[in-house]
Amino acid sequence: MTAAPISADPLDLPTVDDVRAAATRIREAAHRTPVLTSRLVDAEVGAQVFVKAENLQRSGSFKFRGAFNTLSRLSDAHRATGVIAFSSGNHAQAVALAASILHVPATIVMPTDAPASKMAATRGYGAEIVTYDRYTEDREAIATRLSHERGLTLVPPYDHPDVIAGQGTAVLELLEETGPLDALFVCLGGGGLLSGSLLSAQALAPDCAVYGVEPRAGDDGLQSLRAGRIVRIDPPRTLADGAATPYLGTRTFPIIRDRVTDIVTVSDDELVDAMRMFATRMKIITEPTGCLAFAGMRAGVAADPDRFAGARIGVIISGGNVDLDRFAALIG
Amino acid sequence: MTAAPISADPLDLPTVDDVRAAATRIREAAHRTPVLTSRLVDAEVGAQVFVKAENLQRSGSFKFRGAFNTLSRLSDAHRATGVIAFSSGNHAQAVALAASILHVPATIVMPTDAPASKMAATRGYGAEIVTYDRYTEDREAIATRLSHERGLTLVPPYDHPDVIAGQGTAVLELLEETGPLDALFVCLGGGGLLSGSLLSAQALAPDCAVYGVEPRAGDDGLQSLRAGRIVRIDPPRTLADGAATPYLGTRTFPIIRDRVTDIVTVSDDELVDAMRMFATRMKIITEPTGCLAFAGMRAGVAADPDRFAGARIGVIISGGNVDLDRFAALIG
Repeated sequence: MTAAPISADPLDLPTVDDVRAAATRIREAAHRTPVLTSRLVDAEVGAQVFVKAENLQRSGSFKFRGAFNTLSRLSDAHRATGVIAFSSGNHAQAVALAASILHVPATIVMPTDAPASKMAATRGYGAEIVTYDRYTEDREAIATRLSHERGLTLVPPYDHPDVIAGQGTAVLELLEETGPLDALFVCLGGGGLLSGSLLSAQALAPDCAVYGVEPRAGDDGLQSLRAGRIVRIDPPRTLADGAATPYLGTRTFPIIRDRVTDIVTVSDDELVDAMRMFATRMKIITEPTGCLAFAGMRAGVAADPDRFAGARIGVIISGGNVDLDRFAALIG
Repeated sequence: MTAAPISADPLDLPTVDDVRAAATRIREAAHRTPVLTSRLVDAEVGAQVFVKAENLQRSGSFKFRGAFNTLSRLSDAHRATGVIAFSSGNHAQAVALAASILHVPATIVMPTDAPASKMAATRGYGAEIVTYDRYTEDREAIATRLSHERGLTLVPPYDHPDVIAGQGTAVLELLEETGPLDALFVCLGGGGLLSGSLLSAQALAPDCAVYGVEPRAGDDGLQSLRAGRIVRIDPPRTLADGAATPYLGTRTFPIIRDRVTDIVTVSDDELVDAMRMFATRMKIITEPTGCLAFAGMRAGVAADPDRFAGARIGVIISGGNVDLDRFAALIG
């Protein structure tokens, strides 16, 4: 592993005011997703659990919040020329949908072997797809080149103030609905959702402990927090493909480092257990990455039951984009 | 088929005032379920579709509303002695959960071959289960006998004013959230949800057309509407087990007869298509019966696209209680 430089200009870090502004901006376009509860879950955990269901968000994940906020802030000239993003997953669909709503042309760089359903969804939102070979080509380089050649604005998946501010609106809504919480669990990949959530939590529930949750196989966030610098790891093998990011962002890391209570990790088996629980108890479909926070909450409570006994705990489900046959195979 | 007598005392029929009173009564206990929308569904249908997701209701179906309302109205003496219900499905779980919340002892009469998961859920809510052989014994007779022997109050699955009023609260909430709708589709088994919905719709959206939706194999409701009397059919074979009721109630029928716009029927294949759509587009798990209204809406729109073009249409998902392996097999 090698250290990546931290180069964030402090002035470039978003604040809760940016999150509030994002909430106003996305209000008409995004779903205010429901907060789900289950007596059976509460009984099992020994606490009161509030689940913010971003799998029911438009495009199937919280990523729509950040994408729509970012695209809303583009100048007319940049909107007219269009945007580009690289992603094989939820960010692609989110940018494609946000672009379609705002009448912005979108180009998405996806691997040739991306799931057919995700390609179809992205194309269904009207985006142009440029494919690349993930074994021989570098998607970031392709996107950057196309961005320069065509004058397209690159929409990064997490390391951008407008993206972070947009993602923070999910916890803003959650806390508006529940009031102050004792603890909050949020999944951690590149850190967009977690850093945005930390901004909202600090403003609306300053005493709330906030935990990031990573796949155990890809614990670069935990390593970075312990080392005090961004630690880069090899691309991890985990069911949580949406959190398989090998390093945090230069903007997300300082927010997380300064404000997160701790980072916990969970196994793939724990993610599948959580998927099954959501399907049977709450009747919702989640993707493995989407279950990180719930699985982390369970692990955290199991590790220190006294600390969480009777607590009011928030959990964010990040997304529900999973092929049905894969879903069936995982939970069957 | 034979005609069952209509014996309802008109004074015994609930009104929208009863629905409103039920809404107040269940407020603390029931979930206010979310109203889901999907741009892709709207584009496919050519209308604006609002889906009231009662699969996310406590106990996994709308049945909790009627059960809780009914049990709330029992005298202290009746509460102390307890209640009894016969059901192999959602009504059993709803009565068991409502009884558990209200500290009322509950006995549920279920067939010996009921799905293990439903028995476990019912027992998990603390109810006593009495089993019977569905091929040689009559559940209604068993429940009535136990009711007399033990002084238990029988909670009927649909043909009771308090049950109907409770079920009507789902559409009350829907209309409060959406404002007036042009059309509303509601599943039809024994008629509790449909008759309650008609009371709410007539009060809050008097111009809204309201359609009942039945499995094609079990179209006793349609036959009854056409005949002007309750028509009894043989127990139908359909995936929609929750709507396989062979006859309407003496209270639900007159409300439906006088107020419903029409009754449409759908095939099992159309139900499975709808389950798949809900899973992929809205990330929710539904049971086949739960999809009747959506499938009926699709069929209605396909039959008369001009009539529904651009309309605002409400659809109730009735429930999501389905074993995961069965769900996987159906949608796979």
